Amino acid sequence: MMKTAGLVLTVAALTAGCAHAGQDTLEIMRKADQQTVEGPEEYFTGRATITGNFTRDEPSRISGAIVTFEPGARTAWHSHPLGQTLIVTDGVGWTQVEGEERVEFYEGDIMLCPKDKPHWHGATPDSSMTHIAIQEVQDGTPVHWMHHVTDEEYYGTSSDD
Amino acid sequence: MMKTAGLVLTVAALTAGCAHAGQDTLEIMRKADQQTVEGPEEYFTGRATITGNFTRDEPSRISGAIVTFEPGARTAWHSHPLGQTLIVTDGVGWTQVEGEERVEFYEGDIMLCPKDKPHWHGATPDSSMTHIAIQEVQDGTPVHWMHHVTDEEYYGTSSDD
Repeated sequence: MMKTAGLVLTVAALTAGCAHAGQDTLEIMRKADQQTVEGPEEYFTGRATITGNFTRDEPSRISGAIVTFEPGARTAWHSHPLGQTLIVTDGVGWTQVEGEERVEFYEGDIMLCPKDKPHWHGATPDSSMTHIAIQEVQDGTPVHWMHHVTDEEYYGTSSDD
Repeated sequence: MMKTAGLVLTVAALTAGCAHAGQDTLEIMRKADQQTVEGPEEYFTGRATITGNFTRDEPSRISGAIVTFEPGARTAWHSHPLGQTLIVTDGVGWTQVEGEERVEFYEGDIMLCPKDKPHWHGATPDSSMTHIAIQEVQDGTPVHWMHHVTDEEYYGTSSDD
């Protein structure tokens, strides 16, 4: 039951949202009250955990979450209709935009991912990675999910190789 | 000259933005390349430093920054036309929305600040505080600045007193 609730919460956070800001008053999502859920197999390879999901009420378009990837874990390919901003808070990760080379990134880097372009992001094989992900909703969703990232794609050559 | 540039950058980041995402490619703001600037006296009381300023190109509306407040430092009163999300990454802070009591918050808390409502946020007198601030532009600006927070307002009673 908890797992089902977690998956529903996760999917909601990745597509439409779970926590709504009151229009007129301050809402604080206390750290102790934030649920941590597993990234669903449909959208992730390996183990990813998601916490601090938030979605702002209209007219805001923002939703976000804090995502931690275990070594080797990564999202599936996906795109964001209005782009995505990733603020890396821990570890070392890899990301790739369709048609570009894989790029390594580190704690403290901020990534401005282009709109509409398929991409994936995750940990490196040897390090975990945590980022805050911020995106904006358009036509009812902030994300369009695609196929999983194969090992060939994940381990493929990068600009650093 | 550096100070002037810093202030211009800061004001830009707080009002319209400084770093723009390419529409079609990934842009990474590396930690080592992110400028740290002082929060301008016009908008802050005490010492605040701002780093990681980013502003997304249209059609995105997002801008953000990482702001560190020394003990006692706080923003002036201000409002955001589409609200603001504060992700607290270190320390202990205080915030107040006009008409509400002052509230204390901690590392790991996520604050969903309402749109259009005057508010302020900063460190407590005894602790520094760092938060990531995310807001959306409307009619050319993500923020409307007002008067400074007086010591009377800052030290005023809260729901915890």
